[in-house]
Amino acid sequence: MDASAACAVVPVIMSGGSGTRLWPLSTVDRPKQFHALASTTSMFQDTLRRVTGGEIVRFMPPVAVSSSRHAGLVSDEFLAAGIEPSAIVLEPVGRNTAAVAAIAAQLVERSHPGALVLLLPADHVVRDTAGFQAAVARGAEVARTHIVTLGVKPTRAESGYGYIQQGIELAEGVFKVVRFAEKPKPELAEAYVASGDYAWNGGIFLFSPDVMLRELRRFRPDIAAAAGAALETASRDRAFIHLNEDAFAACPAESIDYAVMERTEWVAVAPVDIGWADIGSWSELWRLGPQDLSGNVARGDALLLDTTNSLVWAAPGIKVAILGVRDLIVVVQGDSVLVLPKGRAQDLKAVVSRLDAADGSPA
Amino acid sequence: MDASAACAVVPVIMSGGSGTRLWPLSTVDRPKQFHALASTTSMFQDTLRRVTGGEIVRFMPPVAVSSSRHAGLVSDEFLAAGIEPSAIVLEPVGRNTAAVAAIAAQLVERSHPGALVLLLPADHVVRDTAGFQAAVARGAEVARTHIVTLGVKPTRAESGYGYIQQGIELAEGVFKVVRFAEKPKPELAEAYVASGDYAWNGGIFLFSPDVMLRELRRFRPDIAAAAGAALETASRDRAFIHLNEDAFAACPAESIDYAVMERTEWVAVAPVDIGWADIGSWSELWRLGPQDLSGNVARGDALLLDTTNSLVWAAPGIKVAILGVRDLIVVVQGDSVLVLPKGRAQDLKAVVSRLDAADGSPA
Repeated sequence: MDASAACAVVPVIMSGGSGTRLWPLSTVDRPKQFHALASTTSMFQDTLRRVTGGEIVRFMPPVAVSSSRHAGLVSDEFLAAGIEPSAIVLEPVGRNTAAVAAIAAQLVERSHPGALVLLLPADHVVRDTAGFQAAVARGAEVARTHIVTLGVKPTRAESGYGYIQQGIELAEGVFKVVRFAEKPKPELAEAYVASGDYAWNGGIFLFSPDVMLRELRRFRPDIAAAAGAALETASRDRAFIHLNEDAFAACPAESIDYAVMERTEWVAVAPVDIGWADIGSWSELWRLGPQDLSGNVARGDALLLDTTNSLVWAAPGIKVAILGVRDLIVVVQGDSVLVLPKGRAQDLKAVVSRLDAADGSPA
Repeated sequence: MDASAACAVVPVIMSGGSGTRLWPLSTVDRPKQFHALASTTSMFQDTLRRVTGGEIVRFMPPVAVSSSRHAGLVSDEFLAAGIEPSAIVLEPVGRNTAAVAAIAAQLVERSHPGALVLLLPADHVVRDTAGFQAAVARGAEVARTHIVTLGVKPTRAESGYGYIQQGIELAEGVFKVVRFAEKPKPELAEAYVASGDYAWNGGIFLFSPDVMLRELRRFRPDIAAAAGAALETASRDRAFIHLNEDAFAACPAESIDYAVMERTEWVAVAPVDIGWADIGSWSELWRLGPQDLSGNVARGDALLLDTTNSLVWAAPGIKVAILGVRDLIVVVQGDSVLVLPKGRAQDLKAVVSRLDAADGSPA
């Protein structure tokens, strides 16, 4: 075990998404990270277990950053996983990931001096936990000077993700980033994948708090200051840290990618092939499988006759019967039923906003 | 009002279908006639009202013939409609319509000497009640010597119905039947409709008990005898007549069409254009409408986006959202959800038998 691998890492789990693209399973009251989408336990618990134990990274108790409306859910997830939180930071309003990175850096700088931050979403799938932890260990030394991102080896020319181009090797398996590329057009995505030196931006970052704070103050001093003020004036209640509402509301909302990653030269990438997936839509969940011989993915009590390449997701106690369709998504959850073709899964947001408008509640 | 129109008519409502082709709304425990499919009240109640009151036919209180498992449902339908039954005949097992016709004839011969029987299914749609009653009045005189069927004017070359070819006129608007034709191939259906002298066999019969019994004894003396024995040995309990189980089980099961109509020369047809429909499938219910400008028919809380020519049937309290499909049927009832293309609606029986097999219960 080398020195870098032995250094302390504080996982900071971002539980921010509202997950409307997986309605009606995922809702504002219970977004997708609180559902068992990829295993028999929730994605949040899967994420907790991914950053706990193991031999090659010295993980500290995790921090969670979540909407304050999900405080109880997050607390329950820690309890269900049998893991003690280091802290649960509650956001009175959502301010995107740059604010979260700023808070994570400032919190860990004080609570665990010298430790690295591993910032990761609560709703990603990673099949290979050992491979994931090995990548974190591999990136630790470079993370003293760079923000290290995990770059997911592309399995298809996906135009829905950002890409990272890798340059020279800084340490074994860790490369200087040439550039971040926004979601490309399909032809460009093909070229990226064919070139072999592009990876998907998996949204998982390993960094030293001082490096992150330096870069944030360089490019977005307003975000660094507002997030810092919200944390300074936060109220604490057991593991909960309630960010000050007025102060945090004043923080600009921007993604860490746009605020820092795409601008700084101090960024590195650790390419990984760890069974990563971001279940951003029902068609993505279908892709994740497991598919039967007819290409169908079914969860729950489902009868599929003469049906191919379709996804059925039925809540317990519901019986779904489907005959003679293909490439269709059928979801039954609570009192809601969704039916749409796989190719239209990305358009679900329009459905949800229409339903919200009909309910008279905010989207 | 002429003499024939003033003669008494006893409506005998057949409530025999199990209605699996409208699963999951229609089930063995509550077949389609007990659901509000075409109006805001059940088809059974609509049928009761169709054979009650009016000026041109002297309707007696109706008789119902139903499976004994639906005794309570039938009783409730009479109550809800505010109509007293003449009798509710309960079948311990189903023995098809020839047995029902035999029982109806024998029952009415004794209870209402000189009256005609109007035998009709509980699950048909008839929009024009006055037109329906006028046709019954028109057929009354011929019904002294013939079994008179209502022949529905075809609105399309439907190959799912039987057809009746009409011959010479026996009375105004009542014709001798040349022949009954079984469900034809599509080309033949086209020819029938084009000819102008074919009508759909609507399964509604007006007859004198002695004519029906004579023809039954001529062609199927076994059915006449077994049904008679089951009625003779029936037990009575208020309006209920419980047919003797052993005796009725011994009765051959055959349709009245096959047992008598297709064989006897004593059959006449009264062509009608009365908004008749037999909702034999979900696609038929879609056809019945009302369709919106996109050709969709929706019942319940349904959001249809970019969707055409589809049917959504949602039970109260269920929210259904559909995006980007066409010619699809989506039904949500109780804990069951059905999705299939309109063109496959006829194959629903296969789904239900598979579900029954999975439940370990008889189909």
